[in-house]
Amino acid sequence: MKENINNEKVTLEELELPQDLKKLSLAQCASLCKEIRNLLISTVSKTGGHLASNLGAVELTMAIHRNFNSPDDKIVWDVGHQSYTHKILTGRLERFSTLRQEGGISGFPKPEESEHDTFISGHSSTSVSVACGIAEAMKLQGKENYAVAVIGDGAISGGMFYEAMNNCGRDRQRNLIVILNDNNMSISKSVGALSKYLTSLRNTEKYLHTKRAVERGLKNIPLVGSSVAKGIKNVKDSVKSNILEQSTMFEDMGFIYLGPVNGHSLSELEEVFHMAKSYHQPVFIHVKTVKGKGYMPAEQNPGEYHGISKFDIATGNPEVAAADSYSTVFGKELVRIGDKDEKICAITAAMKYGTGLQFFHFKHPERFFDVGIAEQHAVTFAGGLASMGMIPVFAVYSSFLQRAYDQLVHDVAIGKLHVVLGVDRAGIVGEDGETHQGLLDVPMLTSIPNTVIFSPSCYSEMKMCMKKAVYDEKGLVAVRYPRGAENVDFSSFHLTTEHLFIRENNSSTLMITYGRLYNEAYNAQRALAEKGFPCDILKLTRIYPLDDDLGEEIKTYRHIVFFEEAMGEGGISEKVGDILSEMGYCGDYSRVTANGFVKQATVRSCLDKLGLTSEKMTEYILERCKDDGKA
Amino acid sequence: MKENINNEKVTLEELELPQDLKKLSLAQCASLCKEIRNLLISTVSKTGGHLASNLGAVELTMAIHRNFNSPDDKIVWDVGHQSYTHKILTGRLERFSTLRQEGGISGFPKPEESEHDTFISGHSSTSVSVACGIAEAMKLQGKENYAVAVIGDGAISGGMFYEAMNNCGRDRQRNLIVILNDNNMSISKSVGALSKYLTSLRNTEKYLHTKRAVERGLKNIPLVGSSVAKGIKNVKDSVKSNILEQSTMFEDMGFIYLGPVNGHSLSELEEVFHMAKSYHQPVFIHVKTVKGKGYMPAEQNPGEYHGISKFDIATGNPEVAAADSYSTVFGKELVRIGDKDEKICAITAAMKYGTGLQFFHFKHPERFFDVGIAEQHAVTFAGGLASMGMIPVFAVYSSFLQRAYDQLVHDVAIGKLHVVLGVDRAGIVGEDGETHQGLLDVPMLTSIPNTVIFSPSCYSEMKMCMKKAVYDEKGLVAVRYPRGAENVDFSSFHLTTEHLFIRENNSSTLMITYGRLYNEAYNAQRALAEKGFPCDILKLTRIYPLDDDLGEEIKTYRHIVFFEEAMGEGGISEKVGDILSEMGYCGDYSRVTANGFVKQATVRSCLDKLGLTSEKMTEYILERCKDDGKA
Repeated sequence: MKENINNEKVTLEELELPQDLKKLSLAQCASLCKEIRNLLISTVSKTGGHLASNLGAVELTMAIHRNFNSPDDKIVWDVGHQSYTHKILTGRLERFSTLRQEGGISGFPKPEESEHDTFISGHSSTSVSVACGIAEAMKLQGKENYAVAVIGDGAISGGMFYEAMNNCGRDRQRNLIVILNDNNMSISKSVGALSKYLTSLRNTEKYLHTKRAVERGLKNIPLVGSSVAKGIKNVKDSVKSNILEQSTMFEDMGFIYLGPVNGHSLSELEEVFHMAKSYHQPVFIHVKTVKGKGYMPAEQNPGEYHGISKFDIATGNPEVAAADSYSTVFGKELVRIGDKDEKICAITAAMKYGTGLQFFHFKHPERFFDVGIAEQHAVTFAGGLASMGMIPVFAVYSSFLQRAYDQLVHDVAIGKLHVVLGVDRAGIVGEDGETHQGLLDVPMLTSIPNTVIFSPSCYSEMKMCMKKAVYDEKGLVAVRYPRGAENVDFSSFHLTTEHLFIRENNSSTLMITYGRLYNEAYNAQRALAEKGFPCDILKLTRIYPLDDDLGEEIKTYRHIVFFEEAMGEGGISEKVGDILSEMGYCGDYSRVTANGFVKQATVRSCLDKLGLTSEKMTEYILERCKDDGKA
Repeated sequence: MKENINNEKVTLEELELPQDLKKLSLAQCASLCKEIRNLLISTVSKTGGHLASNLGAVELTMAIHRNFNSPDDKIVWDVGHQSYTHKILTGRLERFSTLRQEGGISGFPKPEESEHDTFISGHSSTSVSVACGIAEAMKLQGKENYAVAVIGDGAISGGMFYEAMNNCGRDRQRNLIVILNDNNMSISKSVGALSKYLTSLRNTEKYLHTKRAVERGLKNIPLVGSSVAKGIKNVKDSVKSNILEQSTMFEDMGFIYLGPVNGHSLSELEEVFHMAKSYHQPVFIHVKTVKGKGYMPAEQNPGEYHGISKFDIATGNPEVAAADSYSTVFGKELVRIGDKDEKICAITAAMKYGTGLQFFHFKHPERFFDVGIAEQHAVTFAGGLASMGMIPVFAVYSSFLQRAYDQLVHDVAIGKLHVVLGVDRAGIVGEDGETHQGLLDVPMLTSIPNTVIFSPSCYSEMKMCMKKAVYDEKGLVAVRYPRGAENVDFSSFHLTTEHLFIRENNSSTLMITYGRLYNEAYNAQRALAEKGFPCDILKLTRIYPLDDDLGEEIKTYRHIVFFEEAMGEGGISEKVGDILSEMGYCGDYSRVTANGFVKQATVRSCLDKLGLTSEKMTEYILERCKDDGKA
């Protein structure tokens, strides 16, 4: 370790970060960790965001930046929601209060934000693959730097992690380090055999267990009298000649395994990093941390403080009491369906609470399956259940369903198996930004032959759609619904599971829309009526496949505008455009949709920018279809 | 084992299969295995197909059907190309000569073909997820049957396998058995740390190594004096109290590990299956086999006999000498580009020969990466390389790219990283049927913002497109090309990397097409001209994004017909239809595309059924656009 600046207490503001960290004493760093924790709690209490995972990674992040040279060494944060301390320590202290806000800093690593953010990561289990690519590039480029992946114990249940580990193993890269941040928690409680396996490792007394460390001999390790050195000594004694003995799974995959170490002890972390850097081979470091560390409400209930909205610091209570959402209504309705039908199975990929399936788990635990962060397995597992006559319902966020595209095609659709998807967080999600927007499920699912998609406009309609999806449709059936709560100004007369015209007198302009945008269109229709501009609405609920006679029903309109909360390329509005073309429609067709990745902002602001609020719809119609107004 | 019918030699034809297998002696079965091998060799020499993997699995399949009760016990074949013996033993002996032919039996398991085919499997690594779903359903339904997954050592490099193993582990299912058919070969040589790990297991002397077998005590195992029992005894002696000692990776994942056993010894297989069935817990059986077993050319060169076309049995030589194909031309051109540019890296997911990358491997081994059957990792690894300024080129079959949809979105496109895809086997592939047709890459890739897609019509154009993809475009760029060799009647004047009109005099009909269909359209144009029907062609090479002025250029035609060798839903023809609609085009637009899963047949026959041959195009135009002919 280098010389300290001095031993007095320092604050973040005084430092040039991250480089000054290396000049500080451990005591100074510990005091900075306290400052960071307070900043995390106060900021997230105002902005919402990921709290528990970040509180658990404060010392770990500090130690990483003391022991590696970012950005020459590349730090890759898996599911970047543990990267807040990293952001604070790499030049974003002042802007930290803008976290997750429009124009502010992202809740995930983002290279365009800082040279210290190596790679975008909003989805899980990608970091080892990224670091593997970086390490290979460094080797080809003759660089001696390190590629460091930091991954949580939840994320290692994703198949990508395993594919990457298999590829990183023995022989190839030299300077690749994978750090497992093991807090014994995924987003909710970790599941599966791996979790048990990690627990067995966590509880082993073989501190810094490694055969190779011993093989290299203690002389190479310049730590004397430390707990680390003692640990190695212990290991040496128990090393056996049999290659299969004493090996962890990670060693079987070709890594040197170091750990477990206490992830809240800066000194232990420094020692293990020092050792890891000396190998120039792939190293796997097992770090034990406490999710929510340092904030009692989060430590006691880390699941609830994983991703949270604004809260009161003193009590830990959310500012706005939890109300029903599409997710909870979905979950409760699924319980009702499952009460009467023992064939119903509910599946989640580590999002039990996020998708509202906790109710099903409570009521029907034997038919509830949390598969971990493993969307591919979830879908094919559902296919296996369906092949035996069960009715599996997989509730999953739209953006995470992207992981299972091939499985939907190959393991469900080709075999015509009946699998129901609850596509949660479909459409704009807001503050989580590009990686989490649910804009691709529509093009993705419609490309798969024989798929059926419902997009309800309110809770009541969602329940109707769920029953249809379970009982009246066959094959792959999706019900897609947005993040958050319903917002409904229209009446129950407007409910349907098919499609419905809401007509004014003498209108020659038609708005087409679906999902929660129907409420916007409904308000736009009223606003237009007040301005003397009659405008009909075609509200789709089963958005795919479209009814054969739909073209005939709409071709008489002079203007048709489709408002769609999904990617325009491959969206339903594109299909309607094509249908009109094939029918020889000569009127004015246009569409307003998402057409690229949508940056973080509130949902309302995102929709507004896309032109998908009632105000923007009204403006658009008045401008585009003004000849109608005159008529 | 039950009583034998008698001990005389039997032939397949005499038996009621699979049930009679249980009545036979091992000697009788061994003779059947010989008969099956001969049948496999003679049939595949005429039909083409997967030979080496099937030759390696003859005894294994025989033993499975002797020891399990299909279809009550569910046998799930991973990447079903090892299921030929299974087909022969389950009622498809007579039809076996129709293998992979139109109207004949499939080269992969297909439930609509037989109740013994549990699940569709043309893609890799799905079997454990499927078996896991089946085992859960059996438990919920109170059934005592077994779910048996049979998976190759290549397939276990896919992340899905790991996700499934994590979920199948301890406590949940009882009657789940995973059989690893380890021939130490994937399609080509297996890669990665796992492969080394399996080799270490293969070479261990701890026969039927298992702690739990010992814990249960030898008394439960009714085998005395056998090699199996002796093996267990050996293990007992070496079991240690430490939980981490003596455990294989598969035990770490919660399975009982049995093996390795000789997969060509019916008696060893019977013993291990007998034992496995007794546990009523998840069991992992490690079976060693020889790929190509029993046919010398295939044993000596199993990679070449993985998937093959018709060949001469005596010499093992293919009927038609290997000529250039889109794949080999792609591979050789990539070498030329890579010779001059050290930034170029080539990536394959276990398809080095299939994608023509063997040439790059030979010339630039340090920049060549075979990641195993791990398409997800391949794409994100490419993203990591690209983030460091390298130019990764991932050559992959269209249908397997489906596995990496999320990675293309999340790890490449959002970060605007420059990654080049060689999308091989794009379009109709023919005999491999629904699971292998490359019809979804176009809707899949066009849904991702800022993606560029080229679809060349011949080798020369492909080379031009590759250079553009590498040097002139940014972000995610795909070059898609079909299976097999070019078939070109047009001249080099027709080459372009953008779009090109090939005009006749006074035509008011336009055909639009791309890729190898251009040659069909070219011949249709000539046939139509001979009939006095002038018809223009718009040939697209950069098929996405379409040029902004394309609509203007085509809107004057009275008839426009788009012929597309891709799924119509989300295809380019749909986008053109939408563009025309948004422009207010009033003419006659129609499109001819794939619109569902396409069954096995020759490529020509598939294209013919879809209406995508020159003959069918000519007919279509004459019928649809006859008012033009009159004009």
